[in-house]
Amino acid sequence: MDRGDLFIISAPSGAGKSTLCSMLVKELDNIVFSVSHTTRPPRPGEVDGKDYFFVSEAEFQRLVAEDAFLEWARVHGNFYGTHRGQVMDKLAKGLDVILDIDTQGAKQVKEKLPGAVTIFILPPSWQELKRRLVARGSEDREKIKLRLKNALLEMEEVPNYHYTIVNDQLQVAFEELKSIIIAERNKTRRVIGGKIDLAALKPDPEEWDSI
Amino acid sequence: MDRGDLFIISAPSGAGKSTLCSMLVKELDNIVFSVSHTTRPPRPGEVDGKDYFFVSEAEFQRLVAEDAFLEWARVHGNFYGTHRGQVMDKLAKGLDVILDIDTQGAKQVKEKLPGAVTIFILPPSWQELKRRLVARGSEDREKIKLRLKNALLEMEEVPNYHYTIVNDQLQVAFEELKSIIIAERNKTRRVIGGKIDLAALKPDPEEWDSI
Repeated sequence: MDRGDLFIISAPSGAGKSTLCSMLVKELDNIVFSVSHTTRPPRPGEVDGKDYFFVSEAEFQRLVAEDAFLEWARVHGNFYGTHRGQVMDKLAKGLDVILDIDTQGAKQVKEKLPGAVTIFILPPSWQELKRRLVARGSEDREKIKLRLKNALLEMEEVPNYHYTIVNDQLQVAFEELKSIIIAERNKTRRVIGGKIDLAALKPDPEEWDSI
Repeated sequence: MDRGDLFIISAPSGAGKSTLCSMLVKELDNIVFSVSHTTRPPRPGEVDGKDYFFVSEAEFQRLVAEDAFLEWARVHGNFYGTHRGQVMDKLAKGLDVILDIDTQGAKQVKEKLPGAVTIFILPPSWQELKRRLVARGSEDREKIKLRLKNALLEMEEVPNYHYTIVNDQLQVAFEELKSIIIAERNKTRRVIGGKIDLAALKPDPEEWDSI
């Protein structure tokens, strides 16, 4: 069996990353989301080990001290981290793992796992990004401005990603995302010893004589 | 407009390369076959500049002396070559170019164009390759043996190719080949300055104030 790949996917909010990633795990087999550890309390309906691994702050700090995280960050007073062991176990089982993460986290993970495949999802234009964020209607001007400022900072990192998808039409963008996963699965190092053993392509001597 | 990529596709005979490549240029836009130069006379129905560029041996030798070929070879007394200018013109127009070529030719091209993307198409097994070659029914045992021997030599080069496709089920193999082309078109270096200009993702100062 071949080893899976880690796919790091980043995008500014409004680019459509969550929708695209959900479509991907529904359409393809053997690809799963990485489940993060967090110190924030579970929301109604959230399942431990599925949505997040919910841990205490003491437990989280213990894991940080053990260098158990590929990356971690504090957001609005809560800690979030990607547990190395969780990811590595899935990869070893031949699963591809999606890490939906910002550019800062992506940098940390790439240092630890340089073989990770990185994908950036862009909106088609600045105007469209603004339109999508305003259309959500749930946030005030200052919050939208902050999201747009963060988007600008995130998008400066695009050149450091292997792949870039421009999400103009959702179905086209999805086709592109799916193609990237399928193409990576067809990298020679994954196919040899995975789907096929080169030894199976050589005849036994008696077979040769029987032609 | 982005620059196209050169896709070098190799396979032993019986792997299904021609079928897959034909499906590909029918399905995708902006991808074309490279047209070879040859000294062999045209067969009925063959069109100069479409099937081949038909040239005299003197003309071919002149081109060789000028280093005009990315690769060339003599097969059954005729010369065949891939003209660098032909390929480069298409790439510059933003077209992807398919070079359907054996492993020896692929090596020559890779030396001259190290950015080429290389794809190897494999049969699912030795037994299946033999079955396909025998099923053609048009050749005697010795010719089939020779093809199988060549197939073994070709397949030793698989580890030097970026991508490997195992052609067990044609539709699956085709999906994989198409995905590789689409994925390469989504490499960041092609998308930036091609599909999207990063400057379009930055607001003018007055736009910023209008939020």
